[in-house]
Amino acid sequence: MPKFFHRSAVVIYSGGMDSFTMLNWACRQSKEVLPLTFNYGQRHVKEIEFAQKVAKTLALEHKIIDISAIGQLLQGSALTSDIDVPEGHYQEQSMKATVVPNRNMIMLSLAVGYAVSRASDVVYFGAHAGDHAIYPDCRPQFVNAMNRVTEIANYQVVKVLAPFLDYSKGQILAEGLRMGLDYRQTWTCYNGRTKACGKCGACVERLEAFAEQGLPDPVSYE
Amino acid sequence: MPKFFHRSAVVIYSGGMDSFTMLNWACRQSKEVLPLTFNYGQRHVKEIEFAQKVAKTLALEHKIIDISAIGQLLQGSALTSDIDVPEGHYQEQSMKATVVPNRNMIMLSLAVGYAVSRASDVVYFGAHAGDHAIYPDCRPQFVNAMNRVTEIANYQVVKVLAPFLDYSKGQILAEGLRMGLDYRQTWTCYNGRTKACGKCGACVERLEAFAEQGLPDPVSYE
Repeated sequence: MPKFFHRSAVVIYSGGMDSFTMLNWACRQSKEVLPLTFNYGQRHVKEIEFAQKVAKTLALEHKIIDISAIGQLLQGSALTSDIDVPEGHYQEQSMKATVVPNRNMIMLSLAVGYAVSRASDVVYFGAHAGDHAIYPDCRPQFVNAMNRVTEIANYQVVKVLAPFLDYSKGQILAEGLRMGLDYRQTWTCYNGRTKACGKCGACVERLEAFAEQGLPDPVSYE
Repeated sequence: MPKFFHRSAVVIYSGGMDSFTMLNWACRQSKEVLPLTFNYGQRHVKEIEFAQKVAKTLALEHKIIDISAIGQLLQGSALTSDIDVPEGHYQEQSMKATVVPNRNMIMLSLAVGYAVSRASDVVYFGAHAGDHAIYPDCRPQFVNAMNRVTEIANYQVVKVLAPFLDYSKGQILAEGLRMGLDYRQTWTCYNGRTKACGKCGACVERLEAFAEQGLPDPVSYE
């Protein structure tokens, strides 16, 4: 019988490859795992459909929460508005258009509320090193500062864990491959067509991660 | 021409007497004031209707955001569920039933997101000393910890101000009376009937605040 580190874990789970890896990682560390998916008015729901299938396969209680009403508050992002999704690499200046104001603090505050209501001791958050340069709310100092808040905001202490904080996307993929995960169960592309576009920032990063591991991506591209 | 301390301020504004006082206070400190009201599935919308009227009178752009979808996440509170609202004083143990998990972190994270999208430099938050004993997320250490996060979570620094953090409700009322405010413009009661009930925790505290100032409450009671 495996020894668990946590009694109950809420996992912020988008359906993409990083949070898919994290969800499976959490299942090896926590007795109860509660995946939590936010629908914040993304352009398509394909990522969410992938998330649902995975949660079902793992027999986990999956909560999908519609926070699209807050889209009217948070203007100026290509992910929730009519601006074209920029093509090219995340690191480029143009990718700043994909920044949703205060996105991770919002998702974490809701996840922590859910954790308190379910008496969960930890929240898993998929920040990784590849995002540090462009997203301030993916950096170690943000995760530390959030932990200072979640320690004292409620009667119950909730810990925010970011197990891949110092990993590149390639290293996260390597971790998942070691666990024997099947990445056909994930959706990454910003466009919600039948096949992945292979051109948006998310696809470019995914393809790079597989190339780094010397493996082809099992997902089909246009 | 008055000197302002802030360029633009988001004010978390419920329509109750404390945030009504804070909104008017903010109007004396900030060039632009953006009241933000959350509908998180309260039992009644009367408080919100009062908030709307006040914002109109002050000619302020008022944003009301429906976050009731998150009610399914945050169970166990009398304010968003079918549990009876307890009667009596806030300080009593029974009032813990009115605690919504992680409520203030959720509202602040959304308010900070709104502030970033509007290039506001501050968010006003109506925590006060009367709530310190029972609500961990109304205490000075919470406000400090939130500021450490909002300094680094976005490209733009947002400051969380809680001007009444060390005030009792009576002192907040005294401040408002000095400003010449009319408290008939506020709604406090947890029950949404024609007149205030005078018995719920919110009414009891309000009546105490007026008694402390040696004044009758201008609002009608059952």
